[in-house]
Amino acid sequence: MGTFGAVTDPELNAGPLLPGIEGPADLRNLSDEQLQQVAQETRELIVDTIGEIGGHFGANLGTCELAVALHSLLESPRDKILWDVGHQAYPHKILTGRKERLDTIRQYGGLAPFCSIPESEHDIMGAGHASTSIGYAVGLKEAMRKGIGEDGKVIAVIGDGALTGGVAYEALQHAGGLETPVVIVLNDNGMSISPNVGALSHYFNRVRLNPRLFHAREDVEERLTKLPMGLGRRIERLGPEVKSAIKAYWAPGLFFEELGLAYMGVIDGHDVADLRWALRQALAAERPVVVHIHTVKGKGFAAAEEGGLEGMEEWHAAKPGSIVDRKPAAQSKPAPKPVVPVQESDAPDSIAPEKLEEATPKPSPPAYTSVFADALIAEAERDKRVIGITAAMAGGTGLDKLAKALPGQYYDVGIAEQDAVLFASGLALQGAKPVCAIYSTFLQRGFDQIVHDVCLQDLNVIFAMDRAGLVGDDGPTHHGAFDISYLRPLPNMVLMAPRDEAMLVNMLRTAVAHDGPISLRYPRGTAEGVPLPEPPREIEIGKGEILQEGDRVALLGYGWGVQVANDAAEELAAHDLHPTVADARFAKPLDTELVDRLCADHDLVVTIEENVLAGGFGAAVLEHAEDSLHSLGRDRARILRVGLPDRYVTHGKPALLREEVGLTGSAVAERVLAALGSPARANA
Amino acid sequence: MGTFGAVTDPELNAGPLLPGIEGPADLRNLSDEQLQQVAQETRELIVDTIGEIGGHFGANLGTCELAVALHSLLESPRDKILWDVGHQAYPHKILTGRKERLDTIRQYGGLAPFCSIPESEHDIMGAGHASTSIGYAVGLKEAMRKGIGEDGKVIAVIGDGALTGGVAYEALQHAGGLETPVVIVLNDNGMSISPNVGALSHYFNRVRLNPRLFHAREDVEERLTKLPMGLGRRIERLGPEVKSAIKAYWAPGLFFEELGLAYMGVIDGHDVADLRWALRQALAAERPVVVHIHTVKGKGFAAAEEGGLEGMEEWHAAKPGSIVDRKPAAQSKPAPKPVVPVQESDAPDSIAPEKLEEATPKPSPPAYTSVFADALIAEAERDKRVIGITAAMAGGTGLDKLAKALPGQYYDVGIAEQDAVLFASGLALQGAKPVCAIYSTFLQRGFDQIVHDVCLQDLNVIFAMDRAGLVGDDGPTHHGAFDISYLRPLPNMVLMAPRDEAMLVNMLRTAVAHDGPISLRYPRGTAEGVPLPEPPREIEIGKGEILQEGDRVALLGYGWGVQVANDAAEELAAHDLHPTVADARFAKPLDTELVDRLCADHDLVVTIEENVLAGGFGAAVLEHAEDSLHSLGRDRARILRVGLPDRYVTHGKPALLREEVGLTGSAVAERVLAALGSPARANA
Repeated sequence: MGTFGAVTDPELNAGPLLPGIEGPADLRNLSDEQLQQVAQETRELIVDTIGEIGGHFGANLGTCELAVALHSLLESPRDKILWDVGHQAYPHKILTGRKERLDTIRQYGGLAPFCSIPESEHDIMGAGHASTSIGYAVGLKEAMRKGIGEDGKVIAVIGDGALTGGVAYEALQHAGGLETPVVIVLNDNGMSISPNVGALSHYFNRVRLNPRLFHAREDVEERLTKLPMGLGRRIERLGPEVKSAIKAYWAPGLFFEELGLAYMGVIDGHDVADLRWALRQALAAERPVVVHIHTVKGKGFAAAEEGGLEGMEEWHAAKPGSIVDRKPAAQSKPAPKPVVPVQESDAPDSIAPEKLEEATPKPSPPAYTSVFADALIAEAERDKRVIGITAAMAGGTGLDKLAKALPGQYYDVGIAEQDAVLFASGLALQGAKPVCAIYSTFLQRGFDQIVHDVCLQDLNVIFAMDRAGLVGDDGPTHHGAFDISYLRPLPNMVLMAPRDEAMLVNMLRTAVAHDGPISLRYPRGTAEGVPLPEPPREIEIGKGEILQEGDRVALLGYGWGVQVANDAAEELAAHDLHPTVADARFAKPLDTELVDRLCADHDLVVTIEENVLAGGFGAAVLEHAEDSLHSLGRDRARILRVGLPDRYVTHGKPALLREEVGLTGSAVAERVLAALGSPARANA
Repeated sequence: MGTFGAVTDPELNAGPLLPGIEGPADLRNLSDEQLQQVAQETRELIVDTIGEIGGHFGANLGTCELAVALHSLLESPRDKILWDVGHQAYPHKILTGRKERLDTIRQYGGLAPFCSIPESEHDIMGAGHASTSIGYAVGLKEAMRKGIGEDGKVIAVIGDGALTGGVAYEALQHAGGLETPVVIVLNDNGMSISPNVGALSHYFNRVRLNPRLFHAREDVEERLTKLPMGLGRRIERLGPEVKSAIKAYWAPGLFFEELGLAYMGVIDGHDVADLRWALRQALAAERPVVVHIHTVKGKGFAAAEEGGLEGMEEWHAAKPGSIVDRKPAAQSKPAPKPVVPVQESDAPDSIAPEKLEEATPKPSPPAYTSVFADALIAEAERDKRVIGITAAMAGGTGLDKLAKALPGQYYDVGIAEQDAVLFASGLALQGAKPVCAIYSTFLQRGFDQIVHDVCLQDLNVIFAMDRAGLVGDDGPTHHGAFDISYLRPLPNMVLMAPRDEAMLVNMLRTAVAHDGPISLRYPRGTAEGVPLPEPPREIEIGKGEILQEGDRVALLGYGWGVQVANDAAEELAAHDLHPTVADARFAKPLDTELVDRLCADHDLVVTIEENVLAGGFGAAVLEHAEDSLHSLGRDRARILRVGLPDRYVTHGKPALLREEVGLTGSAVAERVLAALGSPARANA
């Protein structure tokens, strides 16, 4: 494996410089060599800090020199530096006055995991979903051109993986058409989070081979002119187009030039002097310019650099305590074929600390992701029409396991959720059973395709939404807070959510057997530790289940909400209340018989879901109950809806966040007691 | 202007052939000349029929030869022909057994306006939103490659305008990466619906100049080899790359070749023989191929062809009765600067027939679109920070007026709703007041950007959603049935809807003054004919209005629902019921005081909206009423929610559709009477 630990160049270390960098202005009088040193110190700070507390890792080690070069040339925040996604923006945070708080990143009350407008005037845009920075950049610069706000330079830093997102292409096109003078730094490390897929990555592979390829264009011109026997002049006589064409062949920016953007590249993204030279030219241009730089994900951290593609994917994020003395801690290296817990490549803290602590006495339950992955493989083995689709989240969704087990039944479309849904529609038209495994939050990007191409066409597409509910440290950009609300209005769609991993397996079975659009949502993190059904059992669409008969109060959970209901029931037992506990299983079609019965036999029905209340599961129950009252003319229990609030929830450990929003057994129990203290029937 | 009418070639007319074409099989034994004749007869049928009944026009005249060429070579439906959007698929419908029903197209109970899976086995996919066909094609072919379903050829026909949609790019990338053998026919007429924008259209303009450019590549090779004085051989000695580069420069497919797709073009899209020759080659290839054809929108209809870009946009769709004897009817030519009614370029029937009939006695009220456009211009004149954004729907949204009046405050991003929202976010960050004018249905494509880039960042972006509710003839792909449900769950977003054009003007004023994300929805078609406020008046956010005090029943409308409430109140007066009528104005924040008061003082509160019920405006009222009951401990009126059903509504005149779904004054009155017949209070 060679040496572990951060790679330092002893020549540069003439006393640390980073402690004196309180803001970008402190970079402006440093020499290239000093700036290079600052970059290296920034990297070391990240290895030391993130290695201990966990967080996004590899991408941030790749952007140390770029962040230094940009801030040394620009006057942020007047000049706008936009970090796409933002999980490569730690060096930027360090250089803009936040280095002392780096050890709080991703923690409740600490620095945000991505760029965040309220956190710093230097965080121009907030982001957590990929591919948005170019659109923002064009908007900012066009406003400046119209004299709105203060004028300045606008730079978007975007990864090669993020360029597979269609919205990035739309914005490139727009910039090219308007000739908006923005600089787009294409930060090319050959990775999105999973290794890149699709034609564009083949293209980048071809042009990335030589980091000094940037100079090739000038070389070609010179070589053409100096050809022996007057050949150069004769080629010139063929016309300028021929010369352009020959030059263009060696300069790899054709793709961008066709879209109307000037192109410079490929620049060594770890050489501050080269970066500054290229950026100066690009910033001086009066048109949109792409500066293509090559960086190494995990640069300077040998375990990531030397591990090849796998090392890079593994070290996209670091788990807490995984790096000791700048070396990966032994226990952080997963066994060659880990089954439990699944390694979640986008998120270092898939194992909540409290679960880690109890890992020694008894094995943790598996992660929901892992159970889903195994169940999907089993379905795919049973039926060759079952095909798994991920959008650049093979590790995070568990589909990497499917890719290994049944590569012929697996697709990664890249960061392209819209295409994932359309591609699935095409597969379904031909009789396949596609399973789109996409995080709840990212599926938002395929919303129109779900409305128009899946539900309207009534196609057999299965949506497996991992990370439904509060995801924890990744925060508001990643919480799956809306999927019930945005899917429930769609005709033909079935919505279900398992209360535990056994039901997850049964629901996947049910989805594969179902004819039409169907979705299931499940939370991030460890499952409940119940035995899995063998074989999986199809359940009846639209039927819920009473788990415990009681009186006065009914707790009706949806998905993970059932666990909260169970906890609340335990708390209430101490108050001599013995509520009915039920699992709705389906938000659409709702088990209307169950709802009617609960409403008729209780004073209070409490719905519990991890989704915003507006239009969510509780709203479905209430809508039915009110309609039913109409037709039946009966009175009914009051309905108390418990769920996420009407605001974006911050980042932090899920347990803390659930306390904050009142999604715990004791919080629900308190609300029940308070509600029973007030008149309990609609007519009381 | 030259000659009007369909251009016919007398040589070809040796007896009509089209009557004998009952299906694609009937084309397979015809000669190129006969096929050319069938194409021309197809065109004449479209001019005659659509000229009389109205419908999509220009694009369909451009695809007659292509449809004939494709069906003569392929065995549909085993081979899959996918028509992107489908508003260019009338020739396909004619050739696949539906020519006798062409005169029912877009009419209630008649042929669908776009391709429709239930309508014909030859309509492989349904569509109405652009840019989806390539994703479907890749999915279909990949399933075939896995042995799922019957094997066949897969062809996507996509316009140059639709290629600006990011999802098309995602799918191109995917096809290139997988090397999926699909044929993509790029039907390039230089138009989306409005003239194309963005860098890609510049690119196409450059390569489209010579429809025989396809042969250029071979020519270049020959010319290079035949250069005098051995120059050709010397260039060859520079290496094969140089020759490739020189050839590539003349061959215009670089953009596609960089994405891994083979490219053939540019082919004359009105020459059946050329088309068949190119398609045969493309279909034989074992890799993805782009066949770039050049067609003329409105081909064969002189008024469209000779009117240049304006003529093409004007004749995208024909109004009923606008063509007499294959000539445009005089009255259909709008005055040079029409103010009322606005010309809606995507939709020929913006003036409902019943309104046309009463046009002589008194002038029709303006269209909502037109009022919006004028109001936006007024706002933009008052405040230079107000900037209008359209996504290739300048005419349909009325923003063409802004483009003429204040070109510096207008942007068309192309068919790229995601970018429209991001671009607006960038503008807003810099202090501008962007107004995204996007149809309700198309805004679905920007959903993730609204969640993640506007609402989470709390930016001042205004969404003006035209075509909210049932749009009529364009049918289920275009109805704006979901926007209340998909926007209401989002924190920070304000939702409002005007009951008439005066309120529309006031709400736009309010939106411009507001700090944060805000949206307004308004229906397609003629407004109510009320006087406009001068100057516009800002209204209080979250405050509704009681229009008529009554008792027992309260009718609470949202947007156009207020008109239904008024009609219902009139009907109920005949039954001696005098309901309260109120305008909620806001779905979020809801006027909770108003709702509480209505619930307290009436037996029945009826909410009326043109949106699906799940999670819609009525759900908002109900959610609040139930929560309020909880805290106040009071009983309340029952809530009856009236809105769109939980299914996709068909196409047809809005009045017919509203009858069908019960969104009329008399239908609502009937439901009120029925509800009052049953126990009317929650506790009764």
